[in-house]
Amino acid sequence: MRIGVDVMGGDGGPDVVVAGAVEACRHVHDADVLVLVGDRGLIGKALDKYGKYSGEKIEICHSDQVIGMGEPPVEALKKKPGSSIAMLARMQKIGELDACVSAGNTGACVAAAHMGLGILKCVHRPGIAITSPAFGHPVSICDVGANVNCRPRNLYEYAVMTSVYFEGFFGVEAPRVGLLSVGEEEGKGNELVKGATKLFRKDSTLNFIGNIESRDILRGTCDVIICEGFVGNVILKLLEGFGEDVVKFFMTKIRETLPTQLDSFNRIVKEMKSTYDFNDYGGAPLLGINGIFLICHGASTSRGIMNAICAARKCLENDVNEQIRRRLGDN
Amino acid sequence: MRIGVDVMGGDGGPDVVVAGAVEACRHVHDADVLVLVGDRGLIGKALDKYGKYSGEKIEICHSDQVIGMGEPPVEALKKKPGSSIAMLARMQKIGELDACVSAGNTGACVAAAHMGLGILKCVHRPGIAITSPAFGHPVSICDVGANVNCRPRNLYEYAVMTSVYFEGFFGVEAPRVGLLSVGEEEGKGNELVKGATKLFRKDSTLNFIGNIESRDILRGTCDVIICEGFVGNVILKLLEGFGEDVVKFFMTKIRETLPTQLDSFNRIVKEMKSTYDFNDYGGAPLLGINGIFLICHGASTSRGIMNAICAARKCLENDVNEQIRRRLGDN
Repeated sequence: MRIGVDVMGGDGGPDVVVAGAVEACRHVHDADVLVLVGDRGLIGKALDKYGKYSGEKIEICHSDQVIGMGEPPVEALKKKPGSSIAMLARMQKIGELDACVSAGNTGACVAAAHMGLGILKCVHRPGIAITSPAFGHPVSICDVGANVNCRPRNLYEYAVMTSVYFEGFFGVEAPRVGLLSVGEEEGKGNELVKGATKLFRKDSTLNFIGNIESRDILRGTCDVIICEGFVGNVILKLLEGFGEDVVKFFMTKIRETLPTQLDSFNRIVKEMKSTYDFNDYGGAPLLGINGIFLICHGASTSRGIMNAICAARKCLENDVNEQIRRRLGDN
Repeated sequence: MRIGVDVMGGDGGPDVVVAGAVEACRHVHDADVLVLVGDRGLIGKALDKYGKYSGEKIEICHSDQVIGMGEPPVEALKKKPGSSIAMLARMQKIGELDACVSAGNTGACVAAAHMGLGILKCVHRPGIAITSPAFGHPVSICDVGANVNCRPRNLYEYAVMTSVYFEGFFGVEAPRVGLLSVGEEEGKGNELVKGATKLFRKDSTLNFIGNIESRDILRGTCDVIICEGFVGNVILKLLEGFGEDVVKFFMTKIRETLPTQLDSFNRIVKEMKSTYDFNDYGGAPLLGINGIFLICHGASTSRGIMNAICAARKCLENDVNEQIRRRLGDN
């Protein structure tokens, strides 16, 4: 398998991505190749400095344009056909890659994958499924921002696709699916939720357990949570921001009142972060596209990149798209 | 001023509400009267036990039906015209009360206020505005659940109404208004947000500072945050649930690894909660109705009830509805 890695994406720059790719070499199969797409000079330097890797599992593919994190995705892609993100999608389209990973501009990744690879015939809109360890009960949430104007059918497709993904990734048969709403009672929610509930109920292969409130998202009540992209994006950023705020508050207070305990508390904070952090599983697949494209958080560490590469491999191994076709083609 | 208090609402039962009302007597004006609506026997017992109050500021109005927290609001109101919530709205309608406070079934409060008091002519849909101390920068979020199928005009009205409320409550002139979206750039967001942005921009009296991401909600970047009720409700419950989860995690770890620091840490947790807790300001006004109805969290403490009574008084004092009429009537 050939997995493309965007070396120009992510807040940590090429060094972090390359370090992650080198680390991943120890986990992928012998015949696998990681294709590092980006500036050849920077990749070389990073390989010397962080990776010191000279095996056969890494190839370099030079790209001479970069899409910045803040650039408007569609315009940026049009202006920069030689960017690493555009190249990844194109290379996968023509079969030079089997899957891609990028920690770059999320909107550009979605647009490049959507336009470059197209979507599966049985799917109307792709969705990003992100996974959190959720204090010990992993949960995948879809969609967290690919599609902010949703119809019930989109949510239904997300439910099927994320179930397939979760099943393959964690080996959990018929994962429990919850539909995010403002109350657990079936009558509650907006028109979108009410319409989706009907579609969810109709599909007996879906293990739909009903509506779920946001307070329970990280409490292990379901394996898969479905919501529209606007709401999912709000949830993701709120957890991130609020988590940081709370930790900051605690650290300030501990520094003031229990300075001798700072190191111990630091360890607890680190452990806490790793038990709910959405970056822990490394990457979020854009489900529904005719290919495999994993999107990583901009702040990904090398470990995050490595995990994303392994996750991309797992998607290929489980043939996620064939499973999705099988499940949605019958509907 | 006569402020009605629902003694039958809230998880803490009549004791907590009565204790809050008695406490409020020390803060309201001499001529004010708090009308405790609920079971006369229970109120009497609670007054003996918690309040030991026998002054002229408290009146009791007997009601013999109760709407449970889990009951479907509209049906419950129809079946129970003698419930405390229904009576509060009716009493305000005929002028026996100037404002009401309830920690009971939120949906029933919204429905009772909406149907019983009606909405202001210049408003299309009422919205619940809840305030958090937000680590030292109070912020009001509207709507958090009154209206889950929103149009741009609704969001615009929420922006004006919540600005008026915030201005009166905190004495902040032209509070900064942010519209919740999935990115700060104006092109981002769903159709609802894009439509609302145009309306916000048109009104020069509104201090609209642009789109805000959920990660910044509690970071003091604006005073008023506008979103539709579905999203607002998700935010509220997510902050509540995640806050509890994080604290639980920390407490478990501290108990395991730093047991001697448990008391000190407990104090820090308590302080942390009070710096972002949405219940701290005691009640959330249902803005847009032709009256004053403050909705409290079910888990309100006596302090929360007291704060809500004072907030209701402040709404009357500031003549919030007249200000709203003035601002929205011209549009």
